Amino acid sequence: MDNNILVIIGGDAAGMSAASKVRRVQPDKQIIVFEKSGYTSYSACGIPYFISGLIATSDELIARSPEEFRTKYNIDVRTQHLVLQVDTENKRIRVLDKIKDTEFWQPYGQLLITTGGKPYCPKDIAGYNAQNVFGVSTLKSGINIENFIRNNNPKNAVIIGGGYIGLEMAEALLIRNIGVTIINRSAQLMNTLDPDMGQIVTEAVRNLGAKVYLNETLKAFEIQENAVTHVITDKQSLPADMVIFGMGSSPNTAFLAGSGIALGVRNAIKVNAQMQTNVPDVWAAGDCTETLNLVSKKHFYIAMGTVANKTGVVAGSSIAGEAATFPGAVGTAVCKVCSYEVARSGLQEKELSKLGIEYVATIIDSTTRAGYYPDSKKIVVKLLAEKNSGRLLGGQIIGEEGAAKRIDVLATAVTHNLTLQHLIDMDLSYAPPFSPVWDPVQTCARKLVKLI
Amino acid sequence: MDNNILVIIGGDAAGMSAASKVRRVQPDKQIIVFEKSGYTSYSACGIPYFISGLIATSDELIARSPEEFRTKYNIDVRTQHLVLQVDTENKRIRVLDKIKDTEFWQPYGQLLITTGGKPYCPKDIAGYNAQNVFGVSTLKSGINIENFIRNNNPKNAVIIGGGYIGLEMAEALLIRNIGVTIINRSAQLMNTLDPDMGQIVTEAVRNLGAKVYLNETLKAFEIQENAVTHVITDKQSLPADMVIFGMGSSPNTAFLAGSGIALGVRNAIKVNAQMQTNVPDVWAAGDCTETLNLVSKKHFYIAMGTVANKTGVVAGSSIAGEAATFPGAVGTAVCKVCSYEVARSGLQEKELSKLGIEYVATIIDSTTRAGYYPDSKKIVVKLLAEKNSGRLLGGQIIGEEGAAKRIDVLATAVTHNLTLQHLIDMDLSYAPPFSPVWDPVQTCARKLVKLI
Repeated sequence: MDNNILVIIGGDAAGMSAASKVRRVQPDKQIIVFEKSGYTSYSACGIPYFISGLIATSDELIARSPEEFRTKYNIDVRTQHLVLQVDTENKRIRVLDKIKDTEFWQPYGQLLITTGGKPYCPKDIAGYNAQNVFGVSTLKSGINIENFIRNNNPKNAVIIGGGYIGLEMAEALLIRNIGVTIINRSAQLMNTLDPDMGQIVTEAVRNLGAKVYLNETLKAFEIQENAVTHVITDKQSLPADMVIFGMGSSPNTAFLAGSGIALGVRNAIKVNAQMQTNVPDVWAAGDCTETLNLVSKKHFYIAMGTVANKTGVVAGSSIAGEAATFPGAVGTAVCKVCSYEVARSGLQEKELSKLGIEYVATIIDSTTRAGYYPDSKKIVVKLLAEKNSGRLLGGQIIGEEGAAKRIDVLATAVTHNLTLQHLIDMDLSYAPPFSPVWDPVQTCARKLVKLI
Repeated sequence: MDNNILVIIGGDAAGMSAASKVRRVQPDKQIIVFEKSGYTSYSACGIPYFISGLIATSDELIARSPEEFRTKYNIDVRTQHLVLQVDTENKRIRVLDKIKDTEFWQPYGQLLITTGGKPYCPKDIAGYNAQNVFGVSTLKSGINIENFIRNNNPKNAVIIGGGYIGLEMAEALLIRNIGVTIINRSAQLMNTLDPDMGQIVTEAVRNLGAKVYLNETLKAFEIQENAVTHVITDKQSLPADMVIFGMGSSPNTAFLAGSGIALGVRNAIKVNAQMQTNVPDVWAAGDCTETLNLVSKKHFYIAMGTVANKTGVVAGSSIAGEAATFPGAVGTAVCKVCSYEVARSGLQEKELSKLGIEYVATIIDSTTRAGYYPDSKKIVVKLLAEKNSGRLLGGQIIGEEGAAKRIDVLATAVTHNLTLQHLIDMDLSYAPPFSPVWDPVQTCARKLVKLI
């Protein structure tokens, strides 16, 4: 067998971005992709909108099918194949063909691991795998949830965890006329926001019609016939026709035990800027890897489609012998919660405190358009900057239509060590339908610069 | 009389931003503002939306009235006062009280000139000042146009010039059910865009219902009873119940002749980064000054509310003895043309050619949201970058709802000498309702980087 073969484990964003990149550079290279599900290159981020019914079919979330990769790109995608073990010493992997239920060893010349993340699931709680309990990660998981709703017509759902996925799912279920209760262990929804900004989100979600219980912990499930009937917390028992875990995700790396491939933060794979692991001829990219935070200069774990795509391309370039690096990320994230757009980038207060960085922070209210222009909406901006230097360290934005994409200027500023004064001086765009004459991020910077 | 008195000529954005800043720092300083109209601190950019009827009254465009400045801020605003002459040798100005029709000399200790711009008007063409011919600049000019429309019910309007103001006015008049013909000297609408992008705007404006004649020049007016009845171009005669000049604006600096205050580009006042003129104790800010272009490193003339506000604050700080500088601008501008949002920043092809800068450019089509997400709109992005270095030199964006504010990332990148690779690496926000996973500006950068 050809030892120069590229084997990729995982056929979603990072894996297929890499495969496509390698194919463009090396038209003749043999590329095999093992994908445990039946799907490739789908938008996991779109799942809540498929469940809400906003997107009619799950097929719309698929950018390119396995068949398309095979015929148009000559990439040998093998779906329903689960990789069980990586033997780096002998440069081979052990693969389970889920259809035939047989195992085989596949040799590789180069290996790329893009196995993504999986939703955190409290396996110490009996019933975590009951038939009406769901995580949200793969397209299959989304299809399972939609099927369950259509076939079982649930009246009420309990969502465990109030992060992005929990909130997007809450909105989706409410649209399907399912009552939603969110149980959140901490004192605020969206822990990636500071408490003052998280409070705004909590109110918005409550106004949307969801019940939100904060500072409350999942303790047990009440089960009948392999289905959860009640969610038991440290404070109450809640009836549930379905349960969704939105407790964050963790990298899919358990199968690497014994491979010698080094893991870092939260067992995500350690990689350098070329997405190489510590083992020769083995790369990794996407949600199964750790990421350098360009503000804290420390590694962190984020599962973001943007990072998966970027690191996939860089891994592909590196595998194909091209120069390319992925510098890192700044934790930019944006989410729609009913009429609110919620965005963040950089570090938040608790991170800065932990790092011992002296900072100042402030919040302002402004509008998405000139105040007098029709349909001008509210926008709240929070900025965090280094004491003395004024270097921007982070920003959070919550607002109605037109608010969220403003986070990109803050992401750019945070990445390139710009200060509040740089932000104030910036020639940002203005016309009455799009912004006040001082963009809200500048209004916030003007207030905060007085405190440094 | 107190020689430490601050006299400000012009009471709109720059002048009143400065006055307010000085007042905050120096609560006891005597500040006199001479304003030729009856209004202060209004949004000239909002005039087209007042004329269209989207904004009900002109009062809504006024941020703060003269009375408010007098009573709440102790700023002595004198409206209907036109300054005729500046005598820098004796530190005094000659003022016409338009109500009393008397003149007087006003001494100053510090002088700030914020007289703004005025619409270019071809005074060599008889009828330029007929009763149905209008420029768009001051609030008064907007009120005059609205009054004229209400009282005369015009059926068709000819707009001379297809820049921002011409197009915003075209839309406003069409909303008022007035037929619109635009005469444009050059081959495209919006000369601040490259021809390929300008073409998109031309089509959009034609689809909106306006007639657009390109490569056509105003030659004369046919006049009856002090009203234009026809606009005569080098190619045809067009019936017109009203005429609007949208031929750009120029600084209001003619009254400075003989003052010794140095003028630069297009007779705009030369200023340093503290907004000081060449004459001691004389500052200038806003649309009457020239601006350093941070990309070309040359001075240019732009009349933008954003720059007026920024330079006003810097002038105020400098006058009050605080350290502050205005570094310059990058020519960011954004405009709404019916359902299109049109934005630009940095340099365009013709400017780069003139400067002898070797560049590459490309255009891509993308969407404002994930392709599968409902109401995803078209967006076209053009980027220009320096050959070899890949430094971003300019960007232009045209798209539907949600497109325009993306220009701010490009403005930031252009200002801080970022490259296409920086743009590709940037951790920009993504969620299906707000963007594709690669933001359109990144998609364009990925295509263009292959050409450097």
